[in-house]
Formats: sequence, structure tokens, C-alpha cells
Amino acid sequence: MRISELSAESGVAIPTIKYYLREGLLHQGEQTAATRAEYDDSHLRRLRLIRALLEVGRLPVASIKKVIAAVEDEDLPIHEMLGIAHYALGPAVEPEPGEDWRQARAEVDRLLDGLGWDVSAHAPTRDELAQTLLKMRQLGMTVDLAPYVEAARTLVAEVEMDTVPFHGPRDAAVEALVLGTVLYGKALDVLRRMAQESESARRLA
Amino acid sequence: MRISELSAESGVAIPTIKYYLREGLLHQGEQTAATRAEYDDSHLRRLRLIRALLEVGRLPVASIKKVIAAVEDEDLPIHEMLGIAHYALGPAVEPEPGEDWRQARAEVDRLLDGLGWDVSAHAPTRDELAQTLLKMRQLGMTVDLAPYVEAARTLVAEVEMDTVPFHGPRDAAVEALVLGTVLYGKALDVLRRMAQESESARRLA
Repeated sequence: MRISELSAESGVAIPTIKYYLREGLLHQGEQTAATRAEYDDSHLRRLRLIRALLEVGRLPVASIKKVIAAVEDEDLPIHEMLGIAHYALGPAVEPEPGEDWRQARAEVDRLLDGLGWDVSAHAPTRDELAQTLLKMRQLGMTVDLAPYVEAARTLVAEVEMDTVPFHGPRDAAVEALVLGTVLYGKALDVLRRMAQESESARRLA
Repeated sequence: MRISELSAESGVAIPTIKYYLREGLLHQGEQTAATRAEYDDSHLRRLRLIRALLEVGRLPVASIKKVIAAVEDEDLPIHEMLGIAHYALGPAVEPEPGEDWRQARAEVDRLLDGLGWDVSAHAPTRDELAQTLLKMRQLGMTVDLAPYVEAARTLVAEVEMDTVPFHGPRDAAVEALVLGTVLYGKALDVLRRMAQESESARRLA
């Protein structure tokens, strides 16, 4: 298809498509004449992925470039490719100096060991959880993660990963992971607050 | 206790305490001399609440004032008071014009009706969930909220609301609700991403 059809099909404006081509986010079409190029389904899939990373993942263009580079590197195993997208979705957490941080981080490592979860030693989620634990302790909260571990485990093992097409095109797998992680994450968060309101109403009735 | 002791006990600097007094976020102490006032446990509890709303809830001072006004209005039922704090924690979502929005919002209303959850017709969480649903549909995702409803219901009914001291001081109830909602929300979100990484590793091994 030509660029005008690619635009119509994807809903992305032509100047935006040209910008993605210049930035290297979208691969070039097949040049069929000096001023004409042919695009195909791989371009449509890539535009869907860019849109997911930009509008849903809210990633800056520099991070999107890294994700796209991982998608294009066919030698990179799928699990590593998905990890690069996944890690980019979380907030950047800086470890804090001091013994309290070290203890919280060690607690996270013990928790994951105990669960037998296969989470990389360098996963930024470890620091993210350490930061939350530390804050809970500083505020004097009673900390019991067990019900949350169980909720996460059930959701992910029984439902979530089934929606990621691991064995299809690489773009489509990353897109599905990003959309599912972010949008079902939002849905879960708001449903939890709705359930809290309802339960508060019930108990205080 | 004197203001210096209130500062030492709460960990809040004296100039900050004076700012809260001027803004009306913290109630005045009992004046015992022209330049001396006595503070008590109610001031400590209030400072803990302000810290929770500011540092954990990330609320602007204008929103904090509304929450404090609800805490101080003893005629306001506990459930309503908690609702004011709770609603302030979510993002502000503007309904969009058009039929798609109307349908997504109607779907949310039907979902809550079907569940029998006691969520106010004016709860901003209804618009928040409608926005997420609409985005999912626009992106062509398969939408199935049932597992998320079940996860939220289980967590809230069996664990979460037990940590809110409904029948203690009003400040303490709001503080517990804010800390639990925000920090356990963060913990759940990161545990879910950890579980995703682990499950991806398992399936792709």
C-alpha cells in the first residue's frame, strides 16, 4: 500500500508517519519509484506498537527507540525483548543511601526467592517494591504482602499472559504486553477503589 | 506539650508546623501564655494525616484543606468523610463528548449494578473506569474485567478494610485509608509486573 493508504488504515497522519520514518521508529517501505514507496502489514503492526508505547505507555521517544531496537534485533530472545519494554513502563526508582534501604531491598530479594519467582536480579521492579516497603515502614504501617502476592499470581498465571501472542510477530507481542500491563493495571486500581467504597458503605451502614 | 516537643515527636519542623497552623490545616493549641501554646495527641494525629495526604497521596494543599474540613465536621458521617479523601486520590477524568463515551459509561454502571456494589452514582471512579474501557475498545483489545473484579473484591473484603479503624479518631481513619489505598496499590501494581516477568520466563524457557 502507499503512504496515503497506510495513513488511512492506521489512523496516523501522514506527517506523523514521515516523522517516525525519519526517527527510525518505522522501517522504510520498499522504494518502487523515486518518490513512491510501498508499505505492508509490518508497517501497520509497527504503527500500532508505536501508538501503544506513546499513548498508553506514555514513554518518551528515547525509550521508544530502545524498545523498537529490541523488536528489530531478531537475535534477541523474546523474553529479553519483552523485558526491555516491560522495564520501561515502571517508574525510575533510585536506591537511597542507608541501612533502611538495604534492609527493605534484602526483604524484597528474600520474598522473591521464597516465592520461587523468576525475576531478574537486575529487574527495576525490585527497587520499586523496596521503595514502597520502606515508605510503609517509615509510616508505621503493618506490612503484609501475602494477599497481594496471591492476587497478582492468580491474575497473571490464570489470565494475563494468555493474551500475549508469544509466537506471533515481535511487534504484536510487545504491543499486547504494554496494553495489558498498563490498561488492566488501571482497571484493577479503580476496581479496587470501587470495592473499598462499597465495603466501607456496607460496614458503616 | 510545647511546639518544640510536638516537632520532635512528629518529626515535622517548627516552621512547617507554623505554616500548617496559619493555613488552618492544623488546629490551634491551647493558649497558656501570650507566646506559648499547649499541643496534645490530636495535633500529633493531625500531623500524621497531613503527612499522609501530602507525601503519599500527593494531594495539593487545596485538596488537603477539603479533606481536613471533612475530618473536622463531626456532623459528617464517617463514610462520607472517607469518600471525600478517597475521591481526592484518583485522577480527575473529564467525560468525553460522543456516543462511545456514553456507551462505556453505561457499561460501567451496568457492571456495578450487576455486582451489587454500593458505589455512589457520583463517584469519580465511574468515569475513570469508563475512560479505561473506552481506550481498550479503541485499541481493539479483548475486554474481560471479571478476573479483576474478583481480585479486587477478595482483597478488599478479606483484607483491606480491616486495617481502617472506623471507630477511632476521625484523623486516624482517613490516614489509614489513604496509606492503605495508595501504598498497597503501588505494591500490587509492582507485584503484578514481577509475576508477569516470572510467568513470561516460565512460558518461554
